[in-house]
Amino acid sequence: MFVTINRNIAEMEYAVRGPLAQRAAELARQGRPTIPCHIGNPQALGQRPISFYREVLSFLEFPARLARERTLRRLFSQNPAAFEGLTAQDFACDYVLELCDQMLSELRTGLGAYTESKGPQFIREAVAEYIDRRDNVAVSGGRRSDPDAIFLTNGASEAAKHIIDILISGPRDGIMIPIPQYPLYSAAIKRAGGVQVNYYPDEESGWTLNRSILEDAIGQARRQGVNVKAIVVINPANPTGAILPERSGREIVDFAAEHGLVIIADEVYQDNLYGAEFVSFARLIGQRDIPLFSLHSTSKGFYGECGRRGGYLEMRNPPRVKDSNLGFADVLLKQASVSLCSNTTGQALTYLMVRPPPPGSEPYQQFIEEKEGVLRELYEKATMIKAAFEEMEGVECFGRTGAMYLFPRLNVLPPGTTDFDYCMNLLETTGLCTVNGSGFGQKPGTSHLRIAFLPPRDLLERVLPEWIRFHNRYVRGVT
Amino acid sequence: MFVTINRNIAEMEYAVRGPLAQRAAELARQGRPTIPCHIGNPQALGQRPISFYREVLSFLEFPARLARERTLRRLFSQNPAAFEGLTAQDFACDYVLELCDQMLSELRTGLGAYTESKGPQFIREAVAEYIDRRDNVAVSGGRRSDPDAIFLTNGASEAAKHIIDILISGPRDGIMIPIPQYPLYSAAIKRAGGVQVNYYPDEESGWTLNRSILEDAIGQARRQGVNVKAIVVINPANPTGAILPERSGREIVDFAAEHGLVIIADEVYQDNLYGAEFVSFARLIGQRDIPLFSLHSTSKGFYGECGRRGGYLEMRNPPRVKDSNLGFADVLLKQASVSLCSNTTGQALTYLMVRPPPPGSEPYQQFIEEKEGVLRELYEKATMIKAAFEEMEGVECFGRTGAMYLFPRLNVLPPGTTDFDYCMNLLETTGLCTVNGSGFGQKPGTSHLRIAFLPPRDLLERVLPEWIRFHNRYVRGVT
Repeated sequence: MFVTINRNIAEMEYAVRGPLAQRAAELARQGRPTIPCHIGNPQALGQRPISFYREVLSFLEFPARLARERTLRRLFSQNPAAFEGLTAQDFACDYVLELCDQMLSELRTGLGAYTESKGPQFIREAVAEYIDRRDNVAVSGGRRSDPDAIFLTNGASEAAKHIIDILISGPRDGIMIPIPQYPLYSAAIKRAGGVQVNYYPDEESGWTLNRSILEDAIGQARRQGVNVKAIVVINPANPTGAILPERSGREIVDFAAEHGLVIIADEVYQDNLYGAEFVSFARLIGQRDIPLFSLHSTSKGFYGECGRRGGYLEMRNPPRVKDSNLGFADVLLKQASVSLCSNTTGQALTYLMVRPPPPGSEPYQQFIEEKEGVLRELYEKATMIKAAFEEMEGVECFGRTGAMYLFPRLNVLPPGTTDFDYCMNLLETTGLCTVNGSGFGQKPGTSHLRIAFLPPRDLLERVLPEWIRFHNRYVRGVT
Repeated sequence: MFVTINRNIAEMEYAVRGPLAQRAAELARQGRPTIPCHIGNPQALGQRPISFYREVLSFLEFPARLARERTLRRLFSQNPAAFEGLTAQDFACDYVLELCDQMLSELRTGLGAYTESKGPQFIREAVAEYIDRRDNVAVSGGRRSDPDAIFLTNGASEAAKHIIDILISGPRDGIMIPIPQYPLYSAAIKRAGGVQVNYYPDEESGWTLNRSILEDAIGQARRQGVNVKAIVVINPANPTGAILPERSGREIVDFAAEHGLVIIADEVYQDNLYGAEFVSFARLIGQRDIPLFSLHSTSKGFYGECGRRGGYLEMRNPPRVKDSNLGFADVLLKQASVSLCSNTTGQALTYLMVRPPPPGSEPYQQFIEEKEGVLRELYEKATMIKAAFEEMEGVECFGRTGAMYLFPRLNVLPPGTTDFDYCMNLLETTGLCTVNGSGFGQKPGTSHLRIAFLPPRDLLERVLPEWIRFHNRYVRGVT
């Protein structure tokens, strides 16, 4: 039996789970050691979860254990000798126990029930407070975040798809996306039947933007009859890893204001800054009435809890819906309702992400050490890989390092070969799985690859020399 | 600023989270006691989670606690006197500890990493084994379930949306759904821009089906130029709660085979049978080449873990894709990939759902007691509510009780009032939140409501007399 299927879905592409990832999985099944750097999946490469998060989640899962923990602590303090091999560190502290009590009391029915479609009120309130604190609104004079304009989502991907699905109302509707981009955006626009309008951050100046880059892109699209409705920004960027300079952010805001565009700000790497300051689009907009949807998730940062599919969407200054008495929030709520709610573990983790243990609390020291350890190590690994690029013929890497990716340009490739060929050969030769630049889009005539800087250092120490050797032979056509 | 939005999304309706649910939330915020029977959300109404599931999940969250648990058990058995107030029952048994070790070893990187887009292989294998065991394929001679044709999903809703999104390739494509139906289906068809083709199970014979009902529906749709591609069946049914007789199931299979339709079988209530036998569509199809997508989730049954968004989709005999070298599985995989993977807690819970502790294992007795306790209580509550209908003027309720819903017909309503008015008045008067039959669709000229039989017995004992009183006044126009 044959069926016709939705052509948009059939044509949709998603390189980070494409042929390279599939070939790597095949090699792994054959017992070949591979290093999965094609995707930002830190715990798959050995990054340890933050203990504080996991300890809290374990009690939320099985609240019966809270009373037992208190009993054990009491018995231990009365008679430590009976607990040979255990120390006070092996028991949960008051802060964790009380936090669990408080979360369970807010959740009322634990993690097993559907929540409100948008997620529980107390978590949305905590997210709003986090945003205000992050953006220092008390000082900057920005608008306060509204808990009712926050939607908890299954990762940021779901949020992005919801907004794009709503905004694309016909085949001429377009959304601007940076090239290179994270393929979620091209796939979601394709699936919704809209037009992808490319804009090209300037690689050599560190993937920065200026007004003419944006005007060129929208002008060309409009001349082709495209109704441009929104602009996507990813900061820190994926796949380039570059941190957007504040000035480029301001260009986008002014540009969006002038052209009546919605800004979709993918800010999931806001904790992957390595010393730089994060300037959110909420802060850049300040008091101006520019529609903004900003996304965050529990998958990246130092938390790296990808599999939990936790995240949120914050809406500001929603556009009014033409020919309808529905507000934009009503429409988003409908979308959320059809999925009933996002998963509750992801919701709880989102709460913990925006409410880290405060200085002076019992878990604080360990939390900070784990957090800083993860971030320090990520940066060191990025630095190691960048140093290897110096030894590869014709490889250049631009932009201030952020997120968890490097996106080097391959200036020299053998005639007739592409960056896809390069990545496939690199995988076959060294086991290192990266993604070709063309999987994200790139300026015509250029070649790149994206690598997630996640493998443990000892693995990098082994594979980087192999990569350098591979590279310098490959580009000279030696195979 | 104004934007046009996707009209399909703007027009989509989802009654179970509609005006009645919203009014109930408003009343609750005002401090009015309400009883949320508008949705099948058992734990929100006090149903206790199965301890076995939660204990395992708590260790998966925080594997560091596994070693401590073993130490505590050893210390306890050496010197129980030092553990005043605790008994052996307060510590995890070997079965649980070993299961956690085994799951963590299969997961390799715990719950924090993205998994394969379809979910981990070992969980898909366990699902396939469960299906074969459930359908007794060894004896019945059906086809074995293929782990590669199983996709773990964020609840069954996501699975249903994925299939419908793929199947609707243009505005004349239609999908048959039973009326009344669960609004996920009407909403998903609407969102995908397809045509909802209604068929009407026969209420008075217990919501059964015969061939002419199905032929009438497809004939009428085809005369209107609709290209009917699939038929949705929900068994046990939602919203009616009725269990589909095997003969009706066979009618659907024959009908689908003759007309070249895909069957989408929503079987999320397969454990809510209360003594009846579950006959899956996989079993009804047997060796025949009829395309089937069947859905299950961790939200219902005796597990009731709605908030976890766990579930799976099993595909059999996928149709071939016209004008494409993609298989149906490739397209489903693409859909899954864009969301990266379903949430890992839901995946782990799906594994536990299909791998209950075996007879003789340490957790077995408690597991069975909890399971049977939940199911017995659900059935008793359904019986209490049905008994109350006997005292309400002009209320009739058909079908063998399954799922967690009753869908009584309101034969007498005051002139000019609708079942929506009835439900809203019932909510305002008694705090009981139900959903009007028109929210699910119903035969023109009839009125119904859906109630989830979930409230604790003491609450039912209080509210049922109030409902009877309300009803008999309301239908006589006394307000």
